[in-house]
Amino acid sequence: MFVLFRSFITIFFISYASSAAAAHPNLVINTDDVDTMRQAVDSPSGRFTVAYNDLLTRLEPIIESGVDVPVPVDSGGGYTHEQHKLNYRLLYDAGIAFQVSGDERYSDFVRDTLLEYAELYPNLSLHPKHRPNATNPGRLFWQSLNEAVWLVYSIQAYDLVYNSLSSSERDRIEAGVLRPMALFLSEDSPTTFNKVHNHGTWVTAAVGMTGFVLDEPLWVDRALYDLELSGEGGFLKQIDELFSSDGYYSEGPYYQRYALMPFVTFAKAIENNRPNLRIFEYRDNLLLKAIDTTIQLSYDGLFFGINDAIKSKGIVTDELVLAVAIAYSQTGDRSLLSVADAQDQTILSGDGLLVAQALDDNLAEDYQMRSQAFLDGPNDDQGALVVLRSNDSVLVGSEGQALVFKATSQGLGHGHFDKLSIQWFDRGEEVYTDYGAARFLNIESKNGGRYLPENETYAKQTIAHNTLVVNETSHFDGDVKLGNLNAPTLNTFNVSEELVLTSATINTAYDGVLLGRTLVSFDLAGESVVLDIFDVEAETESTLDLPVHYNGQLINTSTDIHSEPSLQPLSDRNGYQHLWLRGTAQPGAGLTQHTVLGENNRFYTHSSILPDRAQVLYVETGANDPDFNLVHQQAFITRIQGAAQNRFVSLFEPHGEYNPAKEYTLEASSRVAAMDVIEDENGLTVYISLTDGSQCAVAIAQDAAGISESAELTCE
Amino acid sequence: MFVLFRSFITIFFISYASSAAAAHPNLVINTDDVDTMRQAVDSPSGRFTVAYNDLLTRLEPIIESGVDVPVPVDSGGGYTHEQHKLNYRLLYDAGIAFQVSGDERYSDFVRDTLLEYAELYPNLSLHPKHRPNATNPGRLFWQSLNEAVWLVYSIQAYDLVYNSLSSSERDRIEAGVLRPMALFLSEDSPTTFNKVHNHGTWVTAAVGMTGFVLDEPLWVDRALYDLELSGEGGFLKQIDELFSSDGYYSEGPYYQRYALMPFVTFAKAIENNRPNLRIFEYRDNLLLKAIDTTIQLSYDGLFFGINDAIKSKGIVTDELVLAVAIAYSQTGDRSLLSVADAQDQTILSGDGLLVAQALDDNLAEDYQMRSQAFLDGPNDDQGALVVLRSNDSVLVGSEGQALVFKATSQGLGHGHFDKLSIQWFDRGEEVYTDYGAARFLNIESKNGGRYLPENETYAKQTIAHNTLVVNETSHFDGDVKLGNLNAPTLNTFNVSEELVLTSATINTAYDGVLLGRTLVSFDLAGESVVLDIFDVEAETESTLDLPVHYNGQLINTSTDIHSEPSLQPLSDRNGYQHLWLRGTAQPGAGLTQHTVLGENNRFYTHSSILPDRAQVLYVETGANDPDFNLVHQQAFITRIQGAAQNRFVSLFEPHGEYNPAKEYTLEASSRVAAMDVIEDENGLTVYISLTDGSQCAVAIAQDAAGISESAELTCE
Repeated sequence: MFVLFRSFITIFFISYASSAAAAHPNLVINTDDVDTMRQAVDSPSGRFTVAYNDLLTRLEPIIESGVDVPVPVDSGGGYTHEQHKLNYRLLYDAGIAFQVSGDERYSDFVRDTLLEYAELYPNLSLHPKHRPNATNPGRLFWQSLNEAVWLVYSIQAYDLVYNSLSSSERDRIEAGVLRPMALFLSEDSPTTFNKVHNHGTWVTAAVGMTGFVLDEPLWVDRALYDLELSGEGGFLKQIDELFSSDGYYSEGPYYQRYALMPFVTFAKAIENNRPNLRIFEYRDNLLLKAIDTTIQLSYDGLFFGINDAIKSKGIVTDELVLAVAIAYSQTGDRSLLSVADAQDQTILSGDGLLVAQALDDNLAEDYQMRSQAFLDGPNDDQGALVVLRSNDSVLVGSEGQALVFKATSQGLGHGHFDKLSIQWFDRGEEVYTDYGAARFLNIESKNGGRYLPENETYAKQTIAHNTLVVNETSHFDGDVKLGNLNAPTLNTFNVSEELVLTSATINTAYDGVLLGRTLVSFDLAGESVVLDIFDVEAETESTLDLPVHYNGQLINTSTDIHSEPSLQPLSDRNGYQHLWLRGTAQPGAGLTQHTVLGENNRFYTHSSILPDRAQVLYVETGANDPDFNLVHQQAFITRIQGAAQNRFVSLFEPHGEYNPAKEYTLEASSRVAAMDVIEDENGLTVYISLTDGSQCAVAIAQDAAGISESAELTCE
Repeated sequence: MFVLFRSFITIFFISYASSAAAAHPNLVINTDDVDTMRQAVDSPSGRFTVAYNDLLTRLEPIIESGVDVPVPVDSGGGYTHEQHKLNYRLLYDAGIAFQVSGDERYSDFVRDTLLEYAELYPNLSLHPKHRPNATNPGRLFWQSLNEAVWLVYSIQAYDLVYNSLSSSERDRIEAGVLRPMALFLSEDSPTTFNKVHNHGTWVTAAVGMTGFVLDEPLWVDRALYDLELSGEGGFLKQIDELFSSDGYYSEGPYYQRYALMPFVTFAKAIENNRPNLRIFEYRDNLLLKAIDTTIQLSYDGLFFGINDAIKSKGIVTDELVLAVAIAYSQTGDRSLLSVADAQDQTILSGDGLLVAQALDDNLAEDYQMRSQAFLDGPNDDQGALVVLRSNDSVLVGSEGQALVFKATSQGLGHGHFDKLSIQWFDRGEEVYTDYGAARFLNIESKNGGRYLPENETYAKQTIAHNTLVVNETSHFDGDVKLGNLNAPTLNTFNVSEELVLTSATINTAYDGVLLGRTLVSFDLAGESVVLDIFDVEAETESTLDLPVHYNGQLINTSTDIHSEPSLQPLSDRNGYQHLWLRGTAQPGAGLTQHTVLGENNRFYTHSSILPDRAQVLYVETGANDPDFNLVHQQAFITRIQGAAQNRFVSLFEPHGEYNPAKEYTLEASSRVAAMDVIEDENGLTVYISLTDGSQCAVAIAQDAAGISESAELTCE
């Protein structure tokens, strides 16, 4: 109700202001920006001048060798695909070079390239590599998403050289490619255009920006409110629905970063063309919050690898560089300059100039990474992505620790079945890992660079994550629609001086099963540790599997492992078919410990208290993987069979250092000697005895329903 | 004969000069050094002052907390082991701090610590963790090697504080620990003392240096010429026998680095005490060459991981920092300053001061990494370690390429059965790998930090290396003694402007089998590639296996892999028992290609021409490894069964770039379209056709015996 109301208000506003576009350029860069940029490059030094000169140097051989607009043949990674991607960047870059230098060689390049596209495009039917039955085929590319990206860049390039073109050249370019593409992406692709999804954002941005430049206010309105102007889709609905009030994007940071680009680009164009809409203030500064949240959802410069994430993506991506420049220009927040400094890239725009000059003037202030529960869902009621940080809060080169607790909604089609899973980072390393996506982006031999089949059969399945699996089936039985309807409940997120406590539950991941996880991050005798309490209550006796996927070499276990002489897949479905069973152990009473040597040469011990009947399974990826598509990963899985309920209590502890270069090894053994859990009517207390004889207790107060409410640490 | 003569000459010389030691200190640091060091730290800035102040800061809490000399209990990695290792460094550091500052708190610390050792040592019998039947037990440590290292440091510390001690303190320290330890290491351990081996070098250095300080010329003579003064063992014999004239140490760079420490330390002490011996000029400046060779045997700052190497060791190790300082002091060669700069550590000695001041004065010149055949064997007749470099020759942060061809002698007990194996590096990455040692140094839970059983059963075996295995047995049938008697013959090493050619043969690795490998490094259309020709001629039909162990993800193969539904070990012995068989393929006619995506996000294609009956086996480590001791590695093995001879012709080709952060992929496919080999009476020509239609030919001239003599590259 509230959401609808919000959209109607803005419809009223904007239509009124929608026929002003005349000056060029006026999208992300306007004529005032051009003036200041021209002045800036008169200075012989400074970041902006350096970046501008780099641009001219990079463009020189391109301008020399001329235009290359091939007939589309290849899918992702192939020659024609990459060339068309290259072209839209070159168009944009040459447009910038023209505006700042005034040199017509650059505008000629843009003109000639666009004229070739104008010749080519009318002759294209659907791309030869488009997927049959898909709702999003492209003509220039195999999917319309890439086509929208092409238009977002190319319409800016056209805007940048607009004044240098003759009227007949404009007509040819607009009639040959810009108009038909905008119509193809809107009227001819209603499902994608109206979709509240990141593909929809690219498409609406492309069409809306084209509307500004070609003075087609209806296209802008469609972009804002959907094809029927109903407000049920379109850009504003996307801002309403795809983000929580914390600026968390339901698909997770990898797609949040990707989605940011059209959001901030189109928003900036709206700000220039329909300033009355106050788009950056829309929904309590939502877009600016989303930019900040994207930065927060990283460790050592790389985004948390949840859902379908390619794990090498991080804060240096083009999208976030642009977003940070725009955010700084909007807010003047000097802590963003630290982010820009770490990104080490200068955007050649008015906003980029502001950042470059501020950095030249050493105005950057520290940017703080913080513990936070980022609420999920348009109404903040679909759980949260919770981040617990300790030791430090620097942006990159982290010495600190971060625990990521995924108590979020499903995250649409790119979401994984990983309710209440965790990912743990320490000293620059991902210690307890999330597989991320099974994909080699743009490598043609790997399924055309698209998601691999193993993304569905392994990476998305629950067993590929550090969370509980009941009866070897994935959460929601692997049904995305069901997943989208059911999110966990975030019960607690408390930050105190001595600890951070969080807790969440979900009773819909499995029929008749309540899952609850409580995590406490605190300092244990000088090291940041995590206490992990995972409660399962099922209506029937079940097999409970709690995996810990780890990075590094297993160095020591308290268990006596029975090693398999030959390897069999752990099971035949739900991701288990991709795991080889290397060995099993019966840990027995007392503390069960597994020590791993991380790639950062630090030791990590997982200590847990297990019931007598628990087993530990040692597994690694690679089974049923004929094409070598899976990356090698290892896990130990605690399994309890025939249990209707169990409480898994574990402690994650970093310690010591392995230094083969300097030939010393410090504290290779855990300092945890024993753990006990005592439960009473007020909650539970976990006693941790250390090898030096000292003891700490974490007392967790719980309500009648067993929900963790607060925690207290005492050490003696 | 020649070697004996050389040693006799020096015996004559030195005995004459052997009773001069009186001034203290006079080992690596003499009284002149102390004067200049005291002056240097008067300056408020500069590397030396910074390092000196760091030392004082580090020592402060140690001096505060006092002496800790525990009764020996633990083996490597355990508390008492590490404490005694820490102590000898602290003794040395405190000795330096005393000499430069004159502050008696430091000399008191050295005195008190040594007095505690003087109390402890007489009560020690053999260490509780010594290995039964070993010839090298220690008392303070589980092996005498560590004990010798303790004495090398501690005798220097004693020398540094000598003048501050009372005569009775000296008596107690000398009688309690220094003399009994020197005698324990010499008279009581004749086998190790006389051994021409790096353990022997540490022991002779320790005893010889103790001889200088305690004025026991006989001990010095024993250190130089062995216990019987025969010249059959001792330090000079070690210089004669353990190095080739190129300064290559038969155990390989990892142990060369380790051995350097006592060599250069003792040499420097000899230079100060018996200058007439001109020890640094001995054997045509052998020790200085050995230092340079150690630097050369690295890639991107890390030593080539051949033989029992821990692969994280490199040029920043303490031993090489000391060696470079001493070498610079001896030679004034400013290119060594670049090495010192990369090492980024300042030695607090007279030599260290020279380096620090020269770096402060920006005198460093480029240090060149080069293609070279480092001859092996005391008489240069035991093959060579051949290094082929291309693209660049920088010391660290390498963009360049290096191919290591191991045509060396066995390398004694730490040698691997890896005749003619190769290791290939490109863009900072080890692409085709050598496993190195199976060992987690000083991690007690891993076999006490010593070599793991899998070092013998896997890492040393031939199949763990990139070389040919006949009938699934290792070279020399895994017999070290046999291996020590038989080295390959280096036939060719030619560097021209357009290529580097090398070739070696061995007919003793297997009875009745001649192995010959020819490698050519050259530029193929802009990329440095390697042509690999491996010839096998056996008297009987055999199974020939040629593995390529690779780092990274298999991205594409020309083969159709039959994947195993469950994994079995490849065989039951000779290392094969540790390899799981993941799949097999029948490559058939034409080019067989395997493309790997390296961790540096570059692609590497291995193209080969195989006979029809060839198979490819896809394997990975982990079988019969109940303790998770092996690091995960992968290989593809070309297998030809029932063959008396075969020529394996392969090309190693880097290409393209995978950039998931920037979302582009360039040249993920090999540019090699076809390869042909034509043989005639002059040799053989390998024709390489590229996908762009161009062709290159590498013509290799061979003599009547099939030995590659020269090569020529033509491209059209």
